Amino acid sequence: MYSVPSLKKIYLEYLHANPFNKAPQALFEPADYIMQLGGKRLRPILVLMAYNLFKKEITPALPIAQAVEIFHNFSLVHDDIMDAAPLRRGQPTVHHKYDINTGILSGDVMLIYAYQYLLKIEEQRLIPSIVKVFTDVAEAVCVGQQYDMNFETSDSVTIPEYLSMIENKTALLLVGALKMGAILANAEEQDVYHLGEFGRNVGIAFQLQDDILDTFGDPEKFGKRVGGDIVQNKKTFLVLKTLEVANEVDKNKLLTLMQTHPEDEEKKIEAVKAIFQKNNIQHRADVIKKTYQDKAILHLNSVNIPAERKSQLQALADQLLRRNE
Amino acid sequence: MYSVPSLKKIYLEYLHANPFNKAPQALFEPADYIMQLGGKRLRPILVLMAYNLFKKEITPALPIAQAVEIFHNFSLVHDDIMDAAPLRRGQPTVHHKYDINTGILSGDVMLIYAYQYLLKIEEQRLIPSIVKVFTDVAEAVCVGQQYDMNFETSDSVTIPEYLSMIENKTALLLVGALKMGAILANAEEQDVYHLGEFGRNVGIAFQLQDDILDTFGDPEKFGKRVGGDIVQNKKTFLVLKTLEVANEVDKNKLLTLMQTHPEDEEKKIEAVKAIFQKNNIQHRADVIKKTYQDKAILHLNSVNIPAERKSQLQALADQLLRRNE
Repeated sequence: MYSVPSLKKIYLEYLHANPFNKAPQALFEPADYIMQLGGKRLRPILVLMAYNLFKKEITPALPIAQAVEIFHNFSLVHDDIMDAAPLRRGQPTVHHKYDINTGILSGDVMLIYAYQYLLKIEEQRLIPSIVKVFTDVAEAVCVGQQYDMNFETSDSVTIPEYLSMIENKTALLLVGALKMGAILANAEEQDVYHLGEFGRNVGIAFQLQDDILDTFGDPEKFGKRVGGDIVQNKKTFLVLKTLEVANEVDKNKLLTLMQTHPEDEEKKIEAVKAIFQKNNIQHRADVIKKTYQDKAILHLNSVNIPAERKSQLQALADQLLRRNE
Repeated sequence: MYSVPSLKKIYLEYLHANPFNKAPQALFEPADYIMQLGGKRLRPILVLMAYNLFKKEITPALPIAQAVEIFHNFSLVHDDIMDAAPLRRGQPTVHHKYDINTGILSGDVMLIYAYQYLLKIEEQRLIPSIVKVFTDVAEAVCVGQQYDMNFETSDSVTIPEYLSMIENKTALLLVGALKMGAILANAEEQDVYHLGEFGRNVGIAFQLQDDILDTFGDPEKFGKRVGGDIVQNKKTFLVLKTLEVANEVDKNKLLTLMQTHPEDEEKKIEAVKAIFQKNNIQHRADVIKKTYQDKAILHLNSVNIPAERKSQLQALADQLLRRNE
C-alpha cells in the first residue's frame, strides 16, 4: 500500500503533468494559479487511499483525484468572491488577483473540467454511478454554501441546522472522494457505504474542531489568526451551543458582543472567550466532536477488509482530528 | 412526427412538472425565475427534433432537453453578471432582482443540475458519450464567453477569431443539442456528425444575422433596439468586415466613431450605418451568412433518413434565418 506522503507525491506529479495551460489564457491561467497554491491535497489523497484499499495500483483513480481537487478549488474561487475574501492560503484570491468576472468564468470552467476528468475514467460502465455521486456532492456543496450565507443574517440558527450546513459544505466532498475511489475499485456496496459514512463523520468532526481551534487553539500551531471567528461575529458551533445552554445574562452578553466591531479586538475576544469558558463550551464541543469521531471509527471498522489495510486511513483521520491539540 | 409547436408544448409541460422548487429557497427560486422567463426554447426543441428523426416517442429525450435548457439559462445568469446587464427578456436579470452572490451560486447549482438531468437518461450505457458531448460544449461556451470579453479591449480582432468566438459561444450548444438527441436515439455516427454540422452552420449563420439585424433590421420586427450594437461600440461582424475592406479614411472614421459615447445616439447610428452602406457591408455579411446556411442544408441532406422526415428541421432553420427580413 502507498503511504500518505507517497500518494500526495503521485497526485502532485499528475497535477503538474496536467495543467490547464490552454488558450484563452485569461480563462485558464487563473485555474492553474489556484490549483498550484498548495494545500494538504486531502481530497485527492482520500480518493487514492479508498481505491488503494482494494487495488494495488492507483493510476486508474488519478482522474477522479484530479476531478475532486478541481471541484474543491472551483468552490474556493466562487466562495471567495461571495465572501469578498482577499486572501487564500496567504496569497491573493483569484478575483483579487484578476477580477470578479475572471473568478466567475474561470470557476465555471473548472467545474466543467471536473467532469472532463471523470470522463477520463477507463472503465466506462462505472462512469454513470461515479458521475452521480459527484453531482450529488456538488449540489450539496452549493446548498451548504447557501445555508452558510443565510446564517449570516439569521437570528435563529439551530445546532441541527448548523451541523447540516457543515455536513453539506465540507463533509460531503470527503464522502464523495472516498465513495468514488471505492466504486472505481469495484468495492462491495456495503463497503462503499461505510467508507462514505467514515468520511461524513470525520468531516463533521474536523469542522467542529476548526471551530474549537479558531477560539481555543495554540496561536503558534493554528494556521489562521486565533479569535478570527469571534472578530467576524461568526455563528460557530461555540456560539450556538452557548445560546442553547447559557443563562439569559450570558446569552444577552454574547449577543450584544456579537453586534460590535470594536477597535480593541483582543478585548472582545477575551470577553467572548470568558463566556464560553464559564459555560464549559470547549468541553461540550469536544464531546460532540468525539461522538462523530467515534462514529467514524465504527464505520471504518465495518469496511470488510483486513484491519492493517485500514490503519493508514485511521491514522490520517487521527492526525486530522488531533491537529494542534 | 411531432410539429415544432407540439414539441414546445411537451417540453414546457415537462419544465413545469419539474421545477427546482427545493430548499434553500434563496438558492433555487432564482433558478426557477430565470427558467420561467420564457424564450423560444429552441435548444430543447432541437434535442427533441433530433431524437424524433429516428424515434417515434420522444419522452426518453426530455431529460436531455431539460439539461440543455438549464445549461443555457445558467450561462445567461453568469454572462449577465459579467456584462452587468440589468434586463433579460424584458425582466430583471437574476443578479439584479436578487444580488450578485445569488447569481453566482444559483448559476453554479443550475450547471450542476444540467448534469443531474443527463443522469436521468434511462439507457445507462449511453450516459458517458452524452455527458462527454455536453461537457465539451459547456467548456466551449466558457471559452467563447472569454473571447467575447477579450475582444472588448482588443484592437486586433480578426474575422476568423470572431467567427470562432460565435461558434463557441452560440453555435456549439445547438450542435450539442442535436447530437445528444441523435445519440440517445442510437443514430449512426455519420448521421450524428451531419446533424451536428447542420447545427454548427445554422448557429453561426444565425449569429451573423443577429449582427445584421441589429443594425439593418426593421425596428417593428426586431426584438431589441435597432442600432444597439453601434451605441455600445461592439465589434460585430459588420465592423470587422468594414475594417477589412474599407479605405483608410472610412476605417479611421469608423474607429473614431467607435470611441465616442455621444448624447445624440441616433446621429452616431446614422453615421456608422452610412460607412457600412458605402462599403456594401450588409450585402457582404449576407453573402457569408448564406454560405453557412448553404453548408447547413448540405449537412442536413447528408443525414441518411427520408427527406420528408427532415423537412421540419429544414423549415425551422429557414424560419430562424429569415427572421425579420
